[in-house]
Amino acid sequence: MNIVIVGLGVIGGSIGLALRRAGYKEVFGVDADPHTLQKAEKLGIIQKGSRDGKELFQKAQLVYLCIYPRALPAFIRENAGFFRPGTVLTDVSGIKGDMPEALPPLLPKGVDFVFGHPMAGREKRGIDFASADVFHGANYLIAPIPRNTEEHLLLVEGLARDMGFGRISRISPGEHDQFVAYTSQLPHAIAVALVNSGDPRQDTAALIGDSYRDLTRIAKINAGLWSELFLENRENLMAAVVRFELELDRIKAALEQCDTAALMDRFAESTCRREALDGAKFKQPK
Amino acid sequence: MNIVIVGLGVIGGSIGLALRRAGYKEVFGVDADPHTLQKAEKLGIIQKGSRDGKELFQKAQLVYLCIYPRALPAFIRENAGFFRPGTVLTDVSGIKGDMPEALPPLLPKGVDFVFGHPMAGREKRGIDFASADVFHGANYLIAPIPRNTEEHLLLVEGLARDMGFGRISRISPGEHDQFVAYTSQLPHAIAVALVNSGDPRQDTAALIGDSYRDLTRIAKINAGLWSELFLENRENLMAAVVRFELELDRIKAALEQCDTAALMDRFAESTCRREALDGAKFKQPK
Repeated sequence: MNIVIVGLGVIGGSIGLALRRAGYKEVFGVDADPHTLQKAEKLGIIQKGSRDGKELFQKAQLVYLCIYPRALPAFIRENAGFFRPGTVLTDVSGIKGDMPEALPPLLPKGVDFVFGHPMAGREKRGIDFASADVFHGANYLIAPIPRNTEEHLLLVEGLARDMGFGRISRISPGEHDQFVAYTSQLPHAIAVALVNSGDPRQDTAALIGDSYRDLTRIAKINAGLWSELFLENRENLMAAVVRFELELDRIKAALEQCDTAALMDRFAESTCRREALDGAKFKQPK
Repeated sequence: MNIVIVGLGVIGGSIGLALRRAGYKEVFGVDADPHTLQKAEKLGIIQKGSRDGKELFQKAQLVYLCIYPRALPAFIRENAGFFRPGTVLTDVSGIKGDMPEALPPLLPKGVDFVFGHPMAGREKRGIDFASADVFHGANYLIAPIPRNTEEHLLLVEGLARDMGFGRISRISPGEHDQFVAYTSQLPHAIAVALVNSGDPRQDTAALIGDSYRDLTRIAKINAGLWSELFLENRENLMAAVVRFELELDRIKAALEQCDTAALMDRFAESTCRREALDGAKFKQPK
């Protein structure tokens, strides 16, 4: 199968590595940076790279679009004419926003667009940090739209499985954005706020344990990408922040009232829910 | 050196394993549960155990008190008479509260109490989850009080180093409580609130990435212990929650106003601070 990856950053590069490990050979890459292309070829992430996708797109069966969400509409507008009928495009965006309505009308007849979201990443950016391992057992969300054929959905899902993803689920684009606001963007907002609320005069490094380290790892954040993700999903994210603050207020109220029973109740609830999550971790989708 | 560990839970058990690995042989244990004592002897965590510490304490040079903070005063009251002059007691409590004032008057002359806090743990409880590895490179805080001799402080610090701890710092008991409210209790409050603010009808397990998993690992929480830690440190913790919420509100305000620059500014700040933490991670104390 002829596959093209557009954007060889940490996610595009990891997809290339994972596909190669799964035995796919005809994998090509498009990136604006010639050094990135050179590296990708040298590392065997792609067979051949190009700064301009035109020629590659004409032979492509599947195209992974690993560029920032806001860059997608312009990219589609500029390149739609180069895809042949039967080609499937798929994205990796952390939010879908209005793209499921806005992008399909820009595509030529016979070209499909499967919205996808590999839920694995790293706090580093760039091809140097690409790794196929981060995908192992991770979740992959597919957000079908009416245009999609079952065959094309299965194609993207099959590749996700070959790359090592664990649970591959279908969800509507609207639900996708609602839930990633809670499971992905809210944790990033929390980590950023936690780090920034510390006293900068204090030698925090000497005063922390694993819990602080784990909760703040993602406070090292790609500001350009994440401000896009936050703003494109702002209403869902604001709602998630409000729900989170209500829960935090319940803990604060229990502290104010020295209410041991209320605290224990909140802890029992979170323990039960978090244990259920661990139990579900290794289940495979049907 | 003759060492006694009181309370062979996950922390007491880990201390036993770490001491054994460091070559200490005369390590004894006290626990109310005979099965725990049997396990500890079988695993080689202790040389010999007892449900009653009286006899062991008379020979002890150092005693690790690995029991819940609220159990400490009663324990000292009941056992003070069994320690010989020259013995050093040390605790592992996540908060110090009024203990630095309340405990020393209960001790016989010549018996010292060094307040300590190994900042490493696990979300599991009990001796079955004891592990010397969790201490490797972790922080250890010592909160000196006027009663302490330099010799005794160095004794506890030296053992911490032998057990594999990285940075071992001295801090006043008041500062200790203030900063662990931020670095330890606040992250636990956040993790609990994050898990509990999810929609229970949703199959969260299929919708998460590593960030959610990392931020909620500690939401599996020992309700009895942590409600004590929270309530004994409630004023510091409430202040830390308020500072955190102010930072989260800055992100919320930026979302409301679609203010990309303000978001980028918060992200740049957290990235810079978190990177500084990584850089400081492996520095050794002077």
